[in-house]
Amino acid sequence: MKVAVMGAGTWGTTFGLVVGDSGHEVTLWARRPELAAAINATGRNPDYLPDVELPATLRAVSDPAEAMAGAYAVVLAVPSQRLRETLAGWDVPTDARVVSLAKGIELGTGRRMSEVVREVAGVEPDRLAVVTGPNLAREIAARQPSASVAASVSESTANDVQRICHTPAFRVYTNADVVGCELAGATKNVIALGVGMAVGLGFGANATASLITRGLAETSRLGVALGADPYTFAGLAGLGDLVATCASPLSRNRTFGEELGRGRSVEDISRSTRQVAEGVLSCASVQALAHEHGVEMPIAEHVAAVIAGDLTPAQGVKDLMGRTPGRERD
Amino acid sequence: MKVAVMGAGTWGTTFGLVVGDSGHEVTLWARRPELAAAINATGRNPDYLPDVELPATLRAVSDPAEAMAGAYAVVLAVPSQRLRETLAGWDVPTDARVVSLAKGIELGTGRRMSEVVREVAGVEPDRLAVVTGPNLAREIAARQPSASVAASVSESTANDVQRICHTPAFRVYTNADVVGCELAGATKNVIALGVGMAVGLGFGANATASLITRGLAETSRLGVALGADPYTFAGLAGLGDLVATCASPLSRNRTFGEELGRGRSVEDISRSTRQVAEGVLSCASVQALAHEHGVEMPIAEHVAAVIAGDLTPAQGVKDLMGRTPGRERD
Repeated sequence: MKVAVMGAGTWGTTFGLVVGDSGHEVTLWARRPELAAAINATGRNPDYLPDVELPATLRAVSDPAEAMAGAYAVVLAVPSQRLRETLAGWDVPTDARVVSLAKGIELGTGRRMSEVVREVAGVEPDRLAVVTGPNLAREIAARQPSASVAASVSESTANDVQRICHTPAFRVYTNADVVGCELAGATKNVIALGVGMAVGLGFGANATASLITRGLAETSRLGVALGADPYTFAGLAGLGDLVATCASPLSRNRTFGEELGRGRSVEDISRSTRQVAEGVLSCASVQALAHEHGVEMPIAEHVAAVIAGDLTPAQGVKDLMGRTPGRERD
Repeated sequence: MKVAVMGAGTWGTTFGLVVGDSGHEVTLWARRPELAAAINATGRNPDYLPDVELPATLRAVSDPAEAMAGAYAVVLAVPSQRLRETLAGWDVPTDARVVSLAKGIELGTGRRMSEVVREVAGVEPDRLAVVTGPNLAREIAARQPSASVAASVSESTANDVQRICHTPAFRVYTNADVVGCELAGATKNVIALGVGMAVGLGFGANATASLITRGLAETSRLGVALGADPYTFAGLAGLGDLVATCASPLSRNRTFGEELGRGRSVEDISRSTRQVAEGVLSCASVQALAHEHGVEMPIAEHVAAVIAGDLTPAQGVKDLMGRTPGRERD
């Protein structure tokens, strides 16, 4: 089967490698023609994964229509805040399954990525799936064992997507809760920023484990208010992704938070890193969703205040720890 | 108020320090008179926490009756597999609150620690509490921020216990689910062994996060079969404790698993470490409980097989990863 992977950044390229490993033909779309040419010439992605050999069945193109023509599935691997404008210029085939890989909530609209895909490309929910989980790209590219979730309201679409990306190293479970999977993926970056701050301030495993636990509890509350299944937050898309992100020095969000905790400013860190941490962008949209639905999210709120420059990381963590404890479950 | 902390190992001594910090008088019982004398002479525990100054309100004794006389609360900080024999020789005051700190399931009987306390010391459930959570002792002794849970079927006992150990650095939440808190504490050591094995085999954050997630799902299944609240496993006693244990190089269980993953034998590792990893002892009792209640626990089962020498860590992880994935939630 031919699968179009739209986006040749680290995660798009890695996902293309997984699809190739699972025995399918991959067309990898790169925005820049010179990157597409370099990938085809070297069998590697010199900009994002220079040390990984890509499958022989992977071919890069820079024309989106060519990439998607005749595709069994179209995988969207563009940054969340650029998905709307990017999709607006494309003609997504009406008979393909569409898979969203982006983790984020759209600024301004509060839309989840699958909602943006539906609005802009007219893709109905039963053809749409989301793939998410504890998926640090570099480990997957190295064929380290990983597990992931393919979520769709349609069981057959979830199964189709599982089929195009399941390999011995990359285990894909199906799940019916698209809302929960997308919210878990978007909010974990915000919590990971908070955990990073605590690490940067010199706190240990007890503090970070507590932040992860309480952070998951508050994102789960938001999810339930929006119609998600609370179980999703205890699964691979929630807990799994959050733990992998917070445990790994490879994670941009956790690392960004760590630098904040060490006293650097958002501007300073952004200048010195090539990519913006998704959590920095999602902060405001997650907070807006929480306010709209009357959900208390103290950790996300404190992280947002630090990002906005209204609070130092030390004050933020002190505030969070100073809250009067009550029953664990309210 | 006078609080008796029974056991002067790392965790008992640290808990005594927390009780002292929260403004109470502490009598710390040490089995060996020479250790009690050394603690009183130096204001430190030379064997377990040599670099930490203990509160001035803490006094060590080696006579259990003297330690417990007139105590508002008796805190049990003896190893789980030795709790029964130790308690058998004591006369626990009938009007004191009794707090269990030990994490484990009794070998042979399958009893939780609070059940052992009730059987041997005749303490009724409404006077009993369990304190558990992401509590690496050395971080708490260093007054690093930590959160914990005081669980009791009696809300007033849970509140009493919260009062004797809550400090600005050690935040204590109350919880009503004693069964869930005890099971989460006992099973996490077994899962931590499995996570350690994966680390020792060279696997990354995706694999360990997946093991943590699936491990928590299987311990939660066991908990529900035994009458626990599944929410407990997503809280500080479950997720929080497991994540702290798996994240920290200070954890005996995770470290023991890591050495197994690197190819050393149980005997070899036990010889070179002064203390036995609790998970090694709990393996068999957790498995027996799972069989008795018909609960599938693949990770615990594989860990037990490695401990028993029936499987290499590499085979164990390969088996676990090779299972056919289906729906995330069965």
